[in-house]
Amino acid sequence: MPSSDEMIATVHRYVEAFENGDAEAVAAIYADDATIEDPIGTPIKNGRSEILEFYKMGMASGAKLVLEGPVRVAKDYAAFAFQVRLSWDGSQQTIDVIDTFRFDDRGQIIEMKAYFGPINMKTE
Amino acid sequence: MPSSDEMIATVHRYVEAFENGDAEAVAAIYADDATIEDPIGTPIKNGRSEILEFYKMGMASGAKLVLEGPVRVAKDYAAFAFQVRLSWDGSQQTIDVIDTFRFDDRGQIIEMKAYFGPINMKTE
Repeated sequence: MPSSDEMIATVHRYVEAFENGDAEAVAAIYADDATIEDPIGTPIKNGRSEILEFYKMGMASGAKLVLEGPVRVAKDYAAFAFQVRLSWDGSQQTIDVIDTFRFDDRGQIIEMKAYFGPINMKTE
Repeated sequence: MPSSDEMIATVHRYVEAFENGDAEAVAAIYADDATIEDPIGTPIKNGRSEILEFYKMGMASGAKLVLEGPVRVAKDYAAFAFQVRLSWDGSQQTIDVIDTFRFDDRGQIIEMKAYFGPINMKTE
């Protein structure tokens, strides 16, 4: 199991990859057979190639992530609150999200879940 | 399924019950057969009587909860970041936590998980 510091460092690498618009760097953080449910209640993405496509689409909007508060670490999980900021159809949009990452023994993400819904989206 | 507003209101009732030191009020938010994993990786509490004992012990320290940022709502889940503040052995302690609540059709919590570890605890 990765250490708390390693899991926190991975969360920061995740945020940086968004800053750089680098979907490949995000996909590389995931295990080959990882799953993503983003947001909860939507179809699950399975495996790194679906995951790469998912992030390419997500980053096409220029979305950036701003962490809010410290990363929480419990056993093999990290959980963190953040705000997504993106431009959409000429206006600024924000989405308040909490993600959970579950890590495998090699320190790669094996399961990701994102918690947000319509009530967490705002257009400025 | 409860509405987003109802799930958010329940999170605020949960915080208020801590403010009042009212473990009974917290237990009443849970379904009879609810489970709690707090924090992730520790033994699961099953059913309202174990849940009531768990909160009585937790509140014996005078723990208060301070919400950080908006409650996130996805399908039948709410997720929220907060800080626990308590006095322990004469010093002030804080714990940064993220909780997830899953709700049943009647709007009661059926599953709770708490994400935090030693790295999230600080003594002032």
